[in-house]
Amino acid sequence: MIKQRYPSQLLENAVDAIASLPGVGQRSALRLALHLLRQPVENVEHFTDAIAKMRREARWCRTCMMISDGEECSICADRRRDHSLICVVESVRDVMSIEATGQYNGVYHVLGGIISPINGTGPSDLTIKQLVERVKAAQGSETEVILALSGDVEGETTSFYIYRQISPYGVKVSTLARGLGFGDDLEYADQLTLGRSIANRQIFKP
Amino acid sequence: MIKQRYPSQLLENAVDAIASLPGVGQRSALRLALHLLRQPVENVEHFTDAIAKMRREARWCRTCMMISDGEECSICADRRRDHSLICVVESVRDVMSIEATGQYNGVYHVLGGIISPINGTGPSDLTIKQLVERVKAAQGSETEVILALSGDVEGETTSFYIYRQISPYGVKVSTLARGLGFGDDLEYADQLTLGRSIANRQIFKP
Repeated sequence: MIKQRYPSQLLENAVDAIASLPGVGQRSALRLALHLLRQPVENVEHFTDAIAKMRREARWCRTCMMISDGEECSICADRRRDHSLICVVESVRDVMSIEATGQYNGVYHVLGGIISPINGTGPSDLTIKQLVERVKAAQGSETEVILALSGDVEGETTSFYIYRQISPYGVKVSTLARGLGFGDDLEYADQLTLGRSIANRQIFKP
Repeated sequence: MIKQRYPSQLLENAVDAIASLPGVGQRSALRLALHLLRQPVENVEHFTDAIAKMRREARWCRTCMMISDGEECSICADRRRDHSLICVVESVRDVMSIEATGQYNGVYHVLGGIISPINGTGPSDLTIKQLVERVKAAQGSETEVILALSGDVEGETTSFYIYRQISPYGVKVSTLARGLGFGDDLEYADQLTLGRSIANRQIFKP
C-alpha cells in the first residue's frame, strides 16, 4: 500500500491549497483541482493571476477604507455623489448590496468587521478611528452618518459605540429602518420583528 | 449610480475567476475573494503557486494514464504491487477511493471519463486505445482486468465496449461485485439493487 493519500504530490499540494478556503472540504477541493487540471494552461494561469494580482495590488481607499484599485475608490472619487451622507457598513459586501438597490447616492465607510468580544474583535481592529477623524474633519458642515449594521447584539453594540464616539461632533446619526419586509405576511414574521414594527409604526401616507 | 458591479476591477476579476469554477456562484466567489484579500500575501501566493504548478508540471503516467509527478506514477513504479491485476476506473478520484479501502494491491488504468453520447464523449476521447495496447503487450501472461466502472447505463456501455476490445487477447475480465451494501437494510434498498442481489446470490460461507 502506498503511504501518500494522493498519487501525485503536485495534486495533493493543490488540493490542500484549495481546501484551505473557508467552506471548501477535501472532496470539493479534489473535484476543483481535477477540473483545473483539465483546463487549458492559459485559463488556469488567468485564474491564478487574477487572484494573485488582486491580493498584491488592491489598496484600501484612504477615505472610506473600502477595497480600491488606487488611492481613492471609485465611489469616493465620484463628484456626483453626496459626500455629506456617510453610510457605515461592516464590509464591502454590504456596499455592494446597497449599491444594487440603486436607492443610495451617498458615500460609505467600511468598518472591516464588527465589535465582537467572542471573536476577539475590538474597536481598534476596525476603522472606527478613521471614521471619527472623517466626521471631525466634516464638523460644521451638514453631515449625516447612517449606521447600516446588522440588527443583532454585535451590530447594536458597534452602532452604540460609534454613536458615542461621533456624537460630540454634532453630526446627524441615523440607522436603517427595521420592520416587516415588503410583501411579508404578518403570520410568518418573527415576534421580535413584528413587535418592533408595531412600536416603530409610521404615519400612513397613501 | 456607478456602472460597475464591484468597487474594484481587481476584485471583480478575481471574483469572476473564482466563479468560473464549477459549482461556485458569484456570492460564494465574492466571499472567497474577500477571504483571500484578508490573508497574508505569502499565503495567497502559496495558494496560487500550488495550483499553477500543478497545472504546469503534472504529467500523465505513461502506463496507467493517471495524474503523476513524473513519467510513471507512484503506483506503477511500485514493484511490490501486482502488475498482472489492472483495475480500470473512470478517474483518479476512483483510484483514491479504492486505495482508501486498503484492499487492493494491483495497478490501475484511468480512462479519463466514460462513454456518453449525451455528453459527446466517445471511445476515442478516453484512454481505451492505451488499455488495449497494454493488454496486448501482456498477452500470454496471466493478466486480469477488473472493470470498476459505475453501474449506470453509461458505465455498463463502457464496460461492454472495453470487454469487446480486450477479450481477443485472452485476458481474464472481471467486474465489481454488486449487491446490498454491508449493513444495509433490505427495507430501504432500491428494487434494482435488491433484485440483482437475489439473482447474484452467493454461497453462504460462515
